[in-house]
Amino acid sequence: MNYYAGIDLGGTFVKGGIVDEEGNILVKDKIPTGKERPYAEIAADMAQLVLDLAKKAGISPADVKAAGVGSPGTIDSKNGIIVYSNNIRWEKVPLGAELKKHLGIPVFATNDANAAALGESFAGAAKSYPSSVFITLGTGVGGGIILDNVLFEGNRSAGAEIGHMVIRMGGEKCTCGRKGCFEAYASATALIRQTRNAMAKDKTSKLWEICPNPEDVNGKTAFDGMRAGDKTAEKVVKNYITYLAEGIANLANIFRPDAVVLGGGVCAEGDTLLVPLRRKVNRLLYGGTKYAPVLVTVAKLGNDAGLVGAARFAMQNC
Amino acid sequence: MNYYAGIDLGGTFVKGGIVDEEGNILVKDKIPTGKERPYAEIAADMAQLVLDLAKKAGISPADVKAAGVGSPGTIDSKNGIIVYSNNIRWEKVPLGAELKKHLGIPVFATNDANAAALGESFAGAAKSYPSSVFITLGTGVGGGIILDNVLFEGNRSAGAEIGHMVIRMGGEKCTCGRKGCFEAYASATALIRQTRNAMAKDKTSKLWEICPNPEDVNGKTAFDGMRAGDKTAEKVVKNYITYLAEGIANLANIFRPDAVVLGGGVCAEGDTLLVPLRRKVNRLLYGGTKYAPVLVTVAKLGNDAGLVGAARFAMQNC
Repeated sequence: MNYYAGIDLGGTFVKGGIVDEEGNILVKDKIPTGKERPYAEIAADMAQLVLDLAKKAGISPADVKAAGVGSPGTIDSKNGIIVYSNNIRWEKVPLGAELKKHLGIPVFATNDANAAALGESFAGAAKSYPSSVFITLGTGVGGGIILDNVLFEGNRSAGAEIGHMVIRMGGEKCTCGRKGCFEAYASATALIRQTRNAMAKDKTSKLWEICPNPEDVNGKTAFDGMRAGDKTAEKVVKNYITYLAEGIANLANIFRPDAVVLGGGVCAEGDTLLVPLRRKVNRLLYGGTKYAPVLVTVAKLGNDAGLVGAARFAMQNC
Repeated sequence: MNYYAGIDLGGTFVKGGIVDEEGNILVKDKIPTGKERPYAEIAADMAQLVLDLAKKAGISPADVKAAGVGSPGTIDSKNGIIVYSNNIRWEKVPLGAELKKHLGIPVFATNDANAAALGESFAGAAKSYPSSVFITLGTGVGGGIILDNVLFEGNRSAGAEIGHMVIRMGGEKCTCGRKGCFEAYASATALIRQTRNAMAKDKTSKLWEICPNPEDVNGKTAFDGMRAGDKTAEKVVKNYITYLAEGIANLANIFRPDAVVLGGGVCAEGDTLLVPLRRKVNRLLYGGTKYAPVLVTVAKLGNDAGLVGAARFAMQNC
């Protein structure tokens, strides 16, 4: 059996794991990123994490065939370079080469959402499906596209920016400069804004009992309000699911994948989210659902998706 | 040198050609489709067309290694079956198998827009680019997606329905049942509707001189009006290009292809269309144009794209 190291580089923590050929995590751990430090120091820590993990797993470092890193930002995956990451404030950092110096094995890097997509495809919610679109609903809307079990990244790994697909021309301003992006309607940030706006318009809403301070609104607030029988909250949830469905249907009509996998906190809502979402998406699928159905489901690996996917990326490319 | 037959099946004509490994058309011809006839008769004519073309090209039928067909509708390309075609009123027609009976060579079928996309990628406007998105602006908006020089069709060939990506939620009703599809804003049909609407609102517009009867409005009318200095016409063109740019930018952000190739009558406008369109698309590209630029250009092969692409599809799959 061959083993691969998967590293999920975040702004706060570096998570790492040793993953086998079947996607099982043998051991995992995390260390603080210390993102203000020079990249060489961070890379040295990442390499040490891999060596420590191999030891903990009881395997020789020589049995770790390759390492993969999922990193925020624009990644030139062909060359293992972090082209630009707003999150860790890196620009043109040759992370792959730096890690290789320490580890002496091939190192591959890809975007963190891409890594999570590949992780869910390899060992998670999309395991049985060759093609899937992964959508993370967080601060923004990120995504990853898997075609025939392989990550699709676009030219210079700059594709799969599915959050920056306009679904409502002239609509909400997006951080990218466009108006009406999927991200501006379907991210957790957008749901929070939509909840706050609804509260501002309805001072009698039960949302005020659930969350007296609008500053404290989160992605769960509107769902909680709906469960408490509040009509305003119900409308927020309904509209949010409509936005989400339109974006998912766009991607389904373009890729016609076997599955669309959703990640992010809102997925904890389970069927409350999935049942109406599937109904809406199915109504919007081009040519209907009979010929080539598209399963809409939620992610399974949680925080491990990134490191499993990073390991898988190394496995497929080494 | 190996040769391949390319067939472009249309509602009125069947176009055929013999294509070499480099994408050159040796000979081509067309015959009436006679679409009301049983499919077996049409297939027999298509096979005869291939044999006649081989003869005309001075090559033995045995030198034709495989045949490809581009057909309107939903095509199960893996099995050469026309699942459903509204245009020729076919349902579950095993066209590949039927043609193979006559020709004795492998036969492959794909959607006609996909074939055109592959043709432009192989020997036309996207020849130098491994990845491209082809967009036909006709009665509807069709498309084809080429990744690493290979056609991407989605699960059961049901993907690449780029016309049915909503760009304006709640907007114009689309033939597919959704509201606000790219097709409902960027097709020739949409441009004609936009021109007529503008004429109805401005009875002093020069568009009325150019086209006294609104029934006669076509995709060129608004451009002609703009050239005649009419402000109303200019606004129609400007808005149309804005719609087109939003859809193209969505696809560019998702696929980050090397090139986006436009087909359809409106492309005859050349730089009048392309110069402002490129400016707009470049402004909407995620992360800007420096790192991974996307060329927006127009198709080169005209009516031959389909048969060249069909031949290429056979070449790549046989």
